[in-house]
Order: sequence, then structure tokens, then C-alpha cells
Amino acid sequence: MPMNRPELPSVAQPELDAADRSLVEGVLARQLRPLAKTITLVESQREDHKLRAQRVLEALLPHTGGAMRVGISGVPGVGKSTFIEALGLYLIEQGLRVAVLAVDPSSSVTGGSILGDKTRMELLSQNTGAFIRPSPSACSLGGVAEKTRESMLVCEAAGFDVIIIETVGVGQSETAVAGMADIFCLLQLPNAGDDLQAIKKGIMEIADLIVINKADIDPAAAMRAKSQIKTALHMLRPASPNWTVPVLTLSALRKEGIAEFWNTVMAYRKALTASGELDAKRRHQALAWMWELIDSGLRSRFRSHPQVKDELPALARAVEEGSTTPSIAALRLLGHL
Amino acid sequence: MPMNRPELPSVAQPELDAADRSLVEGVLARQLRPLAKTITLVESQREDHKLRAQRVLEALLPHTGGAMRVGISGVPGVGKSTFIEALGLYLIEQGLRVAVLAVDPSSSVTGGSILGDKTRMELLSQNTGAFIRPSPSACSLGGVAEKTRESMLVCEAAGFDVIIIETVGVGQSETAVAGMADIFCLLQLPNAGDDLQAIKKGIMEIADLIVINKADIDPAAAMRAKSQIKTALHMLRPASPNWTVPVLTLSALRKEGIAEFWNTVMAYRKALTASGELDAKRRHQALAWMWELIDSGLRSRFRSHPQVKDELPALARAVEEGSTTPSIAALRLLGHL
Repeated sequence: MPMNRPELPSVAQPELDAADRSLVEGVLARQLRPLAKTITLVESQREDHKLRAQRVLEALLPHTGGAMRVGISGVPGVGKSTFIEALGLYLIEQGLRVAVLAVDPSSSVTGGSILGDKTRMELLSQNTGAFIRPSPSACSLGGVAEKTRESMLVCEAAGFDVIIIETVGVGQSETAVAGMADIFCLLQLPNAGDDLQAIKKGIMEIADLIVINKADIDPAAAMRAKSQIKTALHMLRPASPNWTVPVLTLSALRKEGIAEFWNTVMAYRKALTASGELDAKRRHQALAWMWELIDSGLRSRFRSHPQVKDELPALARAVEEGSTTPSIAALRLLGHL
Repeated sequence: MPMNRPELPSVAQPELDAADRSLVEGVLARQLRPLAKTITLVESQREDHKLRAQRVLEALLPHTGGAMRVGISGVPGVGKSTFIEALGLYLIEQGLRVAVLAVDPSSSVTGGSILGDKTRMELLSQNTGAFIRPSPSACSLGGVAEKTRESMLVCEAAGFDVIIIETVGVGQSETAVAGMADIFCLLQLPNAGDDLQAIKKGIMEIADLIVINKADIDPAAAMRAKSQIKTALHMLRPASPNWTVPVLTLSALRKEGIAEFWNTVMAYRKALTASGELDAKRRHQALAWMWELIDSGLRSRFRSHPQVKDELPALARAVEEGSTTPSIAALRLLGHL
């Protein structure tokens, strides 16, 4: 590595106290209890916990990156839980260990989904090869996504082979999940209006794989939807020269098409690993994430500056009323820094 | 106005020197030469010009806000110039003064469009009731849009009744224009693939009015496109409870449908003025613009901080390589401020 080590934060291990060292060792020994406790630490809003979480994460970092990160999205009712349970059980049969994480910024409002997630995926949650973790309860999407991204790293250090990151098909959580997954899969219903919504929201553009679920209910409708989506995809610019986004039909309820789904994910991994694109994607994702954190940090520091706090309300009002221009107000406020 | 005056930047008039005062007076007297010179000052990249431009803008501000701001977008080939010329000449016939501005971030790369714009709209450019100004040559979309927004204010101070802001249907310039216009109009061709592109890019979602141009070439295709777009619009959430986005068919070349277009724009203004939404929209646009300028200012200050400059390359590399997390790197860099 051509990196200038002395400029970087010091390596964390020596600073770990006994409690944190036991978390790290437990995670690396693939024990579920320390894993869950570490994720709780990562999710904590307490300042002292945040510092501890950073040290633990730094100690785990060299052991991360080994899993296939699979993002799954789709509107409520599309059958995400049934699909993830069927996929998870299939992967466990193949000898793989599976972690399921969720990004759902609404769950902190609606009262959390701990019980929900485990009830929804009853068989999977009882399986010792699986680890299911509901969406962290942070107030903003950025907060939820950041914690999920770090929990993903913890799961990788705990030796999981596949991390499934589930998100609801509402709001901008899809972009956040696509920004941390190796492959982003969109679940659709076999009905024509559905794909228009996905195109409109720009979701179809970021999907690497599209799955039409519940194909058993009306196979003819599913084939029509498949052909419509293929036409639509044809008009969107492909993200990679080495990957044409496939449209699969399956039935999660009947466990039909799950193996084909996973073979497609593996074909994706093979194609984009060979071209170097998967590695480039992960590097790009990490860097984009850093810049998002920097931008939001800059904005919150700006807002808490005493003179900005004093002047912002009156200047914002003046801008709204047209008695000053946005650029004059912006320059004046920035001048205080 | 319930504003706390002493906290605001001092009123600019006393600081105006003779040259700037003559610009302000010329603009307010509706003279085209001082108008063009003021816009040149606004577009200038020179630091001393920027200060002068701010003072001149402050002096003009009380006289702005009177025009109807019409944004026009559409892919190359849709017939924007022909449409704008036909619309401009129609408005002049109605006794209105018309300014045409452009937001085209590519024009500084492709060599400028000064000749292009005037050649494209030959009749309109020769008419004394019209003022046509090509896209400013600034390097970034943000820069181009900021200068166009300020030029729009100068044109309003010069008493223009209608400001048409044209943009090419590529990149994100549509969002920038929608962010400064009262009404955002999307020109479409009578062909099915076109509206899918607009939906995909999120343009149809921000359009207040959709126009299918070249309807004379194939009236049946135009009616089919109209019905398809109406179906698509039906599935998008309406932006206002008081406005259902109309889809008009017209022929700019034959000057058919221009009066109906303008009547629709006036109906929009009437409906949204009555509900208070037009005023709220302008206030919101100005505030959003201020925050964009603040964010970009914060980012550029951050990047030029000596310690950030020193450490950013190595930390960015560490984040990319996975030897540190995005949040650790972000916190470390933010710590230098």
C-alpha cells in the first residue's frame, strides 16, 4: 500500500479496553452475542459509545469486505420478506452464512420492527446460520444508512458470506442501499403500473437485477410485465458494458426460481470482478459516503456558528421577501466563518 | 415588513459610483444597452466586477419580481427555438415585452451560442420588444444557473413582462431552470419513447405544463402521445391541488396553438396566485438557492483548508482501500476546522 501511514489515525487496538477487546474477539470468533452487542454499540447515539464504536470498527476493518452485499428493494406488498426468507434458507442449504439488515427510516417512527422482522421471517430467524437485524432507530435516513453500513462491516468481520440489505420501496432509501450494496435487486409485481413508478423514481436505473415476484398467480401477466420492463430497460443507458440487467420471474412463496436468482447474482459477481468494476464500485461507494458525511458535518457546524445563528433568520426572511439576493445573503453568512 | 433592518447588509445605493449608478438608471429607464452591460457585469468572473454586480443588483432589487417567469425545456430537435420565437412574437403582438435567457452549461465548451441564439430566432432578435441573451459561459451548471437567475432579476428591473428561460433537455439543467421559473414547460415530440425518457429523468414530475410540438406532422401520433402522457401523469402525484398538468398539442412552425399555450400559462398564474402558491414558490426558490450557494461555499472552503488539503489525499485513499471507515475519515477532516 503506497499510503503515508504516519498521517493517518493511529491503529486502534492498543486503545481498546477489555470490554471492547472481548467484543472484537467475539465477533471474529463468529459468536452471535458479541455480534449483536457490537451492532448495538454501533447504533448507539451516546457520545462515549460513538468513540468506542469507532475503535471497535477500526479493529474489525482488516477482516471486512469478504461478503457478497445484496440490496433488495420493492414496494410494500411485493413479498420482500417471503423472498428474503426463501433466499436465506436456500443459501444456508448451500452452506453459506447469511445476515439480513434493514434500512427503513420510518421504523423509528412506527415503533420499530424488531418483532416485525423476526415474525415476518420466522423460519430464517430460528436458523443458526442466519442473523437478522431490524432497521436501527435513528431520526434521519442518513443516520439509519450510516449505521446499517457499519453493521454490514461488523457482519463481514463475523464471517457472514452474504449480507442482504432490505429496504422499503418508498422515499430515497433505495439510493442509500444501492450505495452500499454490490448488487441492487428490485422486486416488482406482475402489473404494468408498478414499473412506471420504478422508472419515475429512478429506481429502475440503479437496479442491477429485476425480479418479478408472485409470477405463479398470473404467469401470463408476469410475462407481459417482463417484456414491458425489458423494453423500458432497453431505453435506459446500461450502467456497465459487462452486464445487461436481467429480468427474472419467480415465486418466493412456492420457492420457485430462487436458485436461478442466486446463480444470476453469482454471474454478476463473476463478470464485474473480472472487469475490476466491483472493486471500483466499492471504492467509489466508500468515498461517496465519506463526502456525504463531510457535507452534512459542514452544514451542521455552519448552522451552529453563533453569528450565523444570529443572522440567519433575518437574512433568510430577506431572501424570501426578495429584499436581498440569495448570493448576497450566502456570502454574508459565509463571511462569518 | 417585520424585518430587523440593522442586522442586514447596508442598503447599496450610497456606495454606487457614477458608472454603476448610470447602469442602474439605464436599466430602470428600460434602455437595452445598459441592460446588456449590466448582465455582462453580472456574468463577469472578475472579483472587482462581482462586488460591483452585487451593489447594482441590490439597487435594482426593489424593482424586480414583476415578470412571469416561464421555463422551457426539451431535447434537441424538439423545436424549442421555433417555439420560443413564435411565442415571443405572439406576446409582443399582445403588447408585452419579452426577454429570452438560456441555461446551457455546455455552451461554454462548444464555443458559445451567441451567434447561434440570434440566428435561431432571427425575427424575434430583430424585434425591439425582445431581448435575447445566450447562456453565460461559466464552467459549472451552478455558475451558469446563478448568473442566469441574476440576469432574470436585471431584466425584471428593466420592465420586461415575460422572461423565457430556455434550457436543453440534457443533464440537470432542467432542475435548475424549474428552480427559478414560475411555470416549467416541457416540450415533447409526438413519439412514445420520448415521454419515457422524461419520466425516467424525473422531468415530467417537475413539469407544470407539457407541450407536444410538431403535432402537424402526424396528428394521430400526437394524440396517442398526448393520451400516453396523460396516463403517465395520472400516476405521478400532483404538485398542487389547484393545478392539473395539461398536455397541449401544437405546431410552432405553423404558429398553431400558441395563443392556447399562453392562455394556459395565464390560467396557471391565476390559479396559483389565488391560492398563494405562486408567492410561496418564489420564496421557496430563493431560499433553496441561498442554501445551494452556502453548501457549495462550505465545500470549497473545506477543500482549501491547509490541513484538509494535506491529509485528504491519504485519507481518501485509505477510505477507498477499506483501511479506514468513511466516518472516521470524515470526523478527522472535520476536526481541523
